[in-house]
Amino acid sequence: MGEFDLIDRYFKRPVRRNTLGVGDDCALLAPAAGMQMAVSSDMLVEGRHFLPTVDPFKLGHKALAVNLSDLAACGAKPLAFTLALSMPRADEAFLEPFSRGLLALADAHDCELVGGDTTQGPLNICITVFGEVLPGHALLRSGARPGDDIYVSGSLGDARLALEVFRGTIAVSQQVFAQARARMEQPQPRIALGQALRGVATAAIDVSDGLLGDLRHILSRSGVGATIDTTAAMLTMLTGEGIDEEQRMEFVLAGGDDYELVFCAPAARRGEVEAASHASATRVTRIGHIEAQSGLRLVDAHGRAFERDYASFDHFA
Amino acid sequence: MGEFDLIDRYFKRPVRRNTLGVGDDCALLAPAAGMQMAVSSDMLVEGRHFLPTVDPFKLGHKALAVNLSDLAACGAKPLAFTLALSMPRADEAFLEPFSRGLLALADAHDCELVGGDTTQGPLNICITVFGEVLPGHALLRSGARPGDDIYVSGSLGDARLALEVFRGTIAVSQQVFAQARARMEQPQPRIALGQALRGVATAAIDVSDGLLGDLRHILSRSGVGATIDTTAAMLTMLTGEGIDEEQRMEFVLAGGDDYELVFCAPAARRGEVEAASHASATRVTRIGHIEAQSGLRLVDAHGRAFERDYASFDHFA
Repeated sequence: MGEFDLIDRYFKRPVRRNTLGVGDDCALLAPAAGMQMAVSSDMLVEGRHFLPTVDPFKLGHKALAVNLSDLAACGAKPLAFTLALSMPRADEAFLEPFSRGLLALADAHDCELVGGDTTQGPLNICITVFGEVLPGHALLRSGARPGDDIYVSGSLGDARLALEVFRGTIAVSQQVFAQARARMEQPQPRIALGQALRGVATAAIDVSDGLLGDLRHILSRSGVGATIDTTAAMLTMLTGEGIDEEQRMEFVLAGGDDYELVFCAPAARRGEVEAASHASATRVTRIGHIEAQSGLRLVDAHGRAFERDYASFDHFA
Repeated sequence: MGEFDLIDRYFKRPVRRNTLGVGDDCALLAPAAGMQMAVSSDMLVEGRHFLPTVDPFKLGHKALAVNLSDLAACGAKPLAFTLALSMPRADEAFLEPFSRGLLALADAHDCELVGGDTTQGPLNICITVFGEVLPGHALLRSGARPGDDIYVSGSLGDARLALEVFRGTIAVSQQVFAQARARMEQPQPRIALGQALRGVATAAIDVSDGLLGDLRHILSRSGVGATIDTTAAMLTMLTGEGIDEEQRMEFVLAGGDDYELVFCAPAARRGEVEAASHASATRVTRIGHIEAQSGLRLVDAHGRAFERDYASFDHFA
């Protein structure tokens, strides 16, 4: 199967909303009048972002999910994406399920594949995603203000637990592992929540490198500090029972690969945050608050401060 | 040097035209009112698209050039790009010249780096480029009509000659090699020509896989055939003297890596094509014409038909 055959077979579909699809030198996108385009690129490398044993269907899902998560963190509405794919050979046993997983998530978010590139090389998946947002309405990292609450969507720490099971550093029941593995392999981008939070949240980011590390980007961009109720954060974890308390804390605060939103909103707007949570059918948990004093402070359920130092994930540290 | 340090040091610059630059979850682009966005992605893999010995400055240039070439083939005006970069380690001896080469070409075309991703893995460079074009004005592959002339910009075959010298299959003088190598390592995207051809050319594509192979995309999309004057095409080659005639023909017709434009325009508009060539300071050569009869026919300088069968470059053939 040649390069153009495989594009035709697995990735070419009739174009719906966007002007032109896969197959010319460029895709042409027509953003609605007056809208800004939100753009994000993420690259997934075998051995770094996924295990060689991953189900290709789930990998297709995840490759797009981590990109859509960036649109969610901006409150943007997905429009389209490009896919650049390097792989050792044109392997139908990989491409068929990979493209199904990818396009199923794309369809679920009405996000069209409009172009890309295929080449031979070590397995590498690079997706660039496009969304639209009204000027001035994008959720940024820079708007957090003292007194704001800090929330996180969904659950934290489960993906890291699954990774540690794969690594053999911990053992859990089959049932717990299945739940954690689904969180690691099939994260759900919080697109609906991100859009519902426009005009409510003052700042947002998606949690990919670990809660504290990603929250620090908000603090630094906004010129503020924060206190985090670690107990509240740890209670979000779906699969934390039965593992060591210190591990659980590390997985939740610095596990990474969560693809949840951490966001801030004024305390006076708790009702609106709750309404956004309901409207998007996405659980959110209040886990702390923004303060004028810089730095990141951790407290337990009794409000007692304590110290932990976790390295945020860094590909080159 | 960590991931965020290297982004700051080599890739973060003050934002000019686009709303937001490197550093939030998404970049925000604000296309001018009523404009369409042309989007293209290209991925470059070590050993496939460049040699491990390439000068990183030139590699930075080429990685963006091949993407800009797709915008040129659509007649789009460059706006911005994202860069996703996988590399074995954060190596300043690579990153410093790579970013310089990349950003020098970006500046030359007023195309801003607005976001991306860095990760550890085998060297892989994935760029997605954005341009703008008035609705209905993009050059497509589908508009060629019987009677149209076929043109090519610049020169063909030189990049392939350089590759063959690197491979050791041919030997040329140092001077010829230097000229060919510059064509291979530092292609010049024909952005100005592409824009000048809007409203004049009926179809266009950039030559990356080889003249005949890429021209076939125009023929198939347009439902037409063509005759190519191989002598005229071969005369574009800068470095073809002193090599075997058959090799020269293969390099020109099927060499690949040229990043020139092949385009069609009605015979009645030769004056306008010439004007576009002058306005963009880009040489163009008429190399054939479009016919109703499907298929691709080759003729020599005397109009005598002959046959050659070249495989177009295919990563998975």
